[in-house]
Amino acid sequence: MTEKAFQAFYPDEFNQCYGCGKLNPHGHQLESRWDGDETVAYFTPKPYHTAVPGFVYGGLIASLVDCHGTGTASAAAYREAGRPMGSEPALRFVTASLQVDFKAPTPLGPVLEVRAKIDDITPKKVIMTIDVKAEGKVCAKGKVIAVRIPDTMFNSQP
Amino acid sequence: MTEKAFQAFYPDEFNQCYGCGKLNPHGHQLESRWDGDETVAYFTPKPYHTAVPGFVYGGLIASLVDCHGTGTASAAAYREAGRPMGSEPALRFVTASLQVDFKAPTPLGPVLEVRAKIDDITPKKVIMTIDVKAEGKVCAKGKVIAVRIPDTMFNSQP
Repeated sequence: MTEKAFQAFYPDEFNQCYGCGKLNPHGHQLESRWDGDETVAYFTPKPYHTAVPGFVYGGLIASLVDCHGTGTASAAAYREAGRPMGSEPALRFVTASLQVDFKAPTPLGPVLEVRAKIDDITPKKVIMTIDVKAEGKVCAKGKVIAVRIPDTMFNSQP
Repeated sequence: MTEKAFQAFYPDEFNQCYGCGKLNPHGHQLESRWDGDETVAYFTPKPYHTAVPGFVYGGLIASLVDCHGTGTASAAAYREAGRPMGSEPALRFVTASLQVDFKAPTPLGPVLEVRAKIDDITPKKVIMTIDVKAEGKVCAKGKVIAVRIPDTMFNSQP
């Protein structure tokens, strides 16, 4: 794995996300990194991230898939373009479509591994398959279509 | 709309969910109600539920779709069975599949309306289409397949 998380390269205005922004003290601060041609993030849910007792609530799993997907899309776009991470103009993506199939109840307690494979990449779109594993078992399978961030979001800092 | 939220009828062990549990003080405590043959929930994101500044992060939207989906599935199952909400044995559902298409950036600030239409219902499965609207505009379209909660989760209170 690379040392520095993808999110460490986000410009400040893109680093506010509840799921993955380093500058959001309330949020999950998810960190995604390369692991060969795949990307991986690890996250340990809090005890209150529960569904029924003993299991992780689905919304958190969807959040991890979503944010790991947009982070992976950014990193993959930089790699595809042969550009160093964080170089300007920023290559940032948002989720167009998120699909999560819950394969098994996700136990609450163990660290979760969120692992993405890149299925397709074009200048404006990255399609990924993302597994969420607990203790080596796939609990959820995700599919994310991420697209280059639209201008309507880019210049909308309030 | 009915007065009492679906979630108010959940037994205590099913009322711990971060997204919709009345007994989870950290969570969203989403409340879902009938509105004719549709169901609706309203939720105002916190200022820190941000994606890029000014917009709601996708994971929260996915969470709202997910939890409103399982709540709707429960209520629909009771209605279909002609049973009063909350009567035993509890009809509780979990999400098998969650799909969210993000149609437009969701502005952060306004109350969000989460509205479900029931597409299909069988004793073990409820399929719903769920829109998330801000200021009357559909920002996300969801599809949830909810299934009766498996025994592996039902008896797993730690």
